[in-house]
Amino acid sequence: MSVIGVVATLKVQAGKEAEFEKVFGELRSKVKANEKGCLQYDFFKSKSEPSTFVVMEQYASQADLDAHGKTEYFRAAGPALGAVLGGAPTLLFLDKVE
Amino acid sequence: MSVIGVVATLKVQAGKEAEFEKVFGELRSKVKANEKGCLQYDFFKSKSEPSTFVVMEQYASQADLDAHGKTEYFRAAGPALGAVLGGAPTLLFLDKVE
Repeated sequence: MSVIGVVATLKVQAGKEAEFEKVFGELRSKVKANEKGCLQYDFFKSKSEPSTFVVMEQYASQADLDAHGKTEYFRAAGPALGAVLGGAPTLLFLDKVE
Repeated sequence: MSVIGVVATLKVQAGKEAEFEKVFGELRSKVKANEKGCLQYDFFKSKSEPSTFVVMEQYASQADLDAHGKTEYFRAAGPALGAVLGGAPTLLFLDKVE
């Protein structure tokens, strides 16, 4: 069972970047503190498009990825993220080549 | 100076995926063995498009990223990669949000 990678691309409403960074930073702390099966949860700001953010994620298994999306804190962050995003994130699901 | 992230998306010619994995795997080993400033160099196969590969990269500094592209082994891998790729990679350059 290979490690699962996810690249999420999030477009933030212009002027709401700082608010997004705060909300997503809090989510990241909870993910890192609570999810042993989440091997990477790093987020980045695009150098060319300052309102575009990218999250690099890795999970030990599909079950770990599924559990991530069902955590209480992930669901609780939904409204705050929804308020600053410019649309639904684009998600790339990947299998790691070891 | 923030850590620099790169997401590279590579489209491989249909039927040449295994060859690509071999060539890129060898390149990855050399990157990991030689580049202290390269903090991540993982590659993945897309779950939805089996000829699409994604590389998640992180560098301690811009100088480390610049050095990466100038290494002898990176340049040496060019022709072998060119023979299996379906076009130029797309590169996303990112600043890590700590």
